[in-house]
Amino acid sequence: MRKLNSSLQFLIGIIFLVSCQQQAVVENTSNETPLDPLPSWNEGKSKTAILSFIKSSTDTTSNNFVPVEDRIAVFDNDGTLWSEQPAYFQLFFAIDRIKAMASDHPEWKDQQPYKAVLEGDMKALMASGERGLIELVMTSHAGMTTDEFQQIVTDWIATAKHPRFDRPYNELVYQPMLELLDFLRANAFKTFIVSGGGVEFMRPWAEAVYGIPKDQIVGSSIKTKFEIKEGVPQITRLPEIDFIDDKSGKPVGIWKFIGRRPIFCGGNSDGDLQMMQYTASSKYKSMMLYVHHTDSVREWAYDRQSHIGQFDKGLDEAKAKGWNLVSMKDDWKSIYTFD
Amino acid sequence: MRKLNSSLQFLIGIIFLVSCQQQAVVENTSNETPLDPLPSWNEGKSKTAILSFIKSSTDTTSNNFVPVEDRIAVFDNDGTLWSEQPAYFQLFFAIDRIKAMASDHPEWKDQQPYKAVLEGDMKALMASGERGLIELVMTSHAGMTTDEFQQIVTDWIATAKHPRFDRPYNELVYQPMLELLDFLRANAFKTFIVSGGGVEFMRPWAEAVYGIPKDQIVGSSIKTKFEIKEGVPQITRLPEIDFIDDKSGKPVGIWKFIGRRPIFCGGNSDGDLQMMQYTASSKYKSMMLYVHHTDSVREWAYDRQSHIGQFDKGLDEAKAKGWNLVSMKDDWKSIYTFD
Repeated sequence: MRKLNSSLQFLIGIIFLVSCQQQAVVENTSNETPLDPLPSWNEGKSKTAILSFIKSSTDTTSNNFVPVEDRIAVFDNDGTLWSEQPAYFQLFFAIDRIKAMASDHPEWKDQQPYKAVLEGDMKALMASGERGLIELVMTSHAGMTTDEFQQIVTDWIATAKHPRFDRPYNELVYQPMLELLDFLRANAFKTFIVSGGGVEFMRPWAEAVYGIPKDQIVGSSIKTKFEIKEGVPQITRLPEIDFIDDKSGKPVGIWKFIGRRPIFCGGNSDGDLQMMQYTASSKYKSMMLYVHHTDSVREWAYDRQSHIGQFDKGLDEAKAKGWNLVSMKDDWKSIYTFD
Repeated sequence: MRKLNSSLQFLIGIIFLVSCQQQAVVENTSNETPLDPLPSWNEGKSKTAILSFIKSSTDTTSNNFVPVEDRIAVFDNDGTLWSEQPAYFQLFFAIDRIKAMASDHPEWKDQQPYKAVLEGDMKALMASGERGLIELVMTSHAGMTTDEFQQIVTDWIATAKHPRFDRPYNELVYQPMLELLDFLRANAFKTFIVSGGGVEFMRPWAEAVYGIPKDQIVGSSIKTKFEIKEGVPQITRLPEIDFIDDKSGKPVGIWKFIGRRPIFCGGNSDGDLQMMQYTASSKYKSMMLYVHHTDSVREWAYDRQSHIGQFDKGLDEAKAKGWNLVSMKDDWKSIYTFD
């Protein structure tokens, strides 16, 4: 009897799961032509591959069907969801912060890397090396509560403008990728950002722009501590690196924050190679999609020799393994939401 | 085959639990009296407080309305969602692992803390102190891939039995708390576990039992590294602590993994005090709910002097601040799903 009950419950459970999945799939009950879920993508190999992958992974009769809970899609941010030239946007944020803080630090006039920042000398700034850049980030990103830092980022993203486009940085997001994110979610994929950028630099604005909840944004982080300040429990940001979510750190971050191998991975540089490899090793049929910066007119064209977003080993491996290479120039009808 | 059978039994068991939880979700399409969303809770102060809090935080006309994206509910696990006596269940797991590994380690017969484990000498084991326990955890939890560890936990939870109840450990979850989790989710709360226990010890079974996705489970962790082993990308578990998600670590973990102050916090011990304080500091009206172990017959009765789940400072602060103290004896009609 107990066994019978269990079997019955098992059956009910399966039916419940299947019916949940059905609801999530894009419905087309009319006789009209289905709406194109990816209107900013030109017809071609990339678009066909995406449509085909999502169709087969959500079709219960397909050998490649993936249960809803395993439909995990991860995306790099810089260069994959928004632009990253002429430098990572977070560096512009750090520079603006240093300038805003400079009046309290007269000593910075003669002290690198601050001197370089205040004089707008990017060459000297780059010459300060990794050590200099880390010092800059720590000075501009630590020493306040998380509430305060969140407000600083929110104010900056609302007011700062990109040097080339003279628009807020969060308007430089790729319209075709927004459509892809929406299409994945409409098919019950859970979408995540897995970025080398600072998690607390992304969370204040990325949720609204990408439709990805804060708790689904994974990034690099500095250490924090809990303390009660003037009666109010606060989390304070400390000038010490906690986790670098780049290269081999990306699959480590995926496992730490998500706990599953993804079945879809979007990236654009060698920093994304290891999470591509990790996604490719899923027990399900998975999709690896590399955005290739090929549009020198509407965006930028760069790969192997670039200082920002270098795409060299990843390009070779993508070609060798037949991963999807999206050419921004050829595959994308429009680049930005404002195009 | 035996493994397959036990996995199947496990699957049937968890689907049974999930379908039980479904019944708890409020559905009232007729004119009849609404179904009670918390049938295992006795009428009284605690139940009234929960119903009232959820009503006011989801009522758009209420001053205490909370937008969906901020409806974050966090729960401790040990002693809050499942039992934790006579010791944290993860310790039983570690002990069973050591015993299973012992044949490859003849030297353990004479070496603490392994000797104590193999002889079942809990007193000697406790005498080995924190250092001994950490060594035990590292030996039993590290040195394999995350895939392998996941399988070890899955097999253990399907076969091991609790010494008092002679049932799988994951049946010792509290039916009233399952109803509360369901009721919160039915009201668009996002539910998270924030536990001092190991995140990779919880994820393999907690998703099915509590209806909480793996990526919404936050816990203590050891370090890992990405490597390609025999051509397969793997994440390997290292014998080094990464993060202790207890006491002051809990709000730090909440910020790191969730990125928002919660508005609902469930706990049972001093280990949960800081996340209670953090939740209490929300800009919204928040609810702090402490499960008080008062039932010496159906579960266990303990608080201030207990070695496991000590509830002393938290009990004082809950009383001083008027947080909700749930008496398991008085507030809960049934304790476990099998009651």
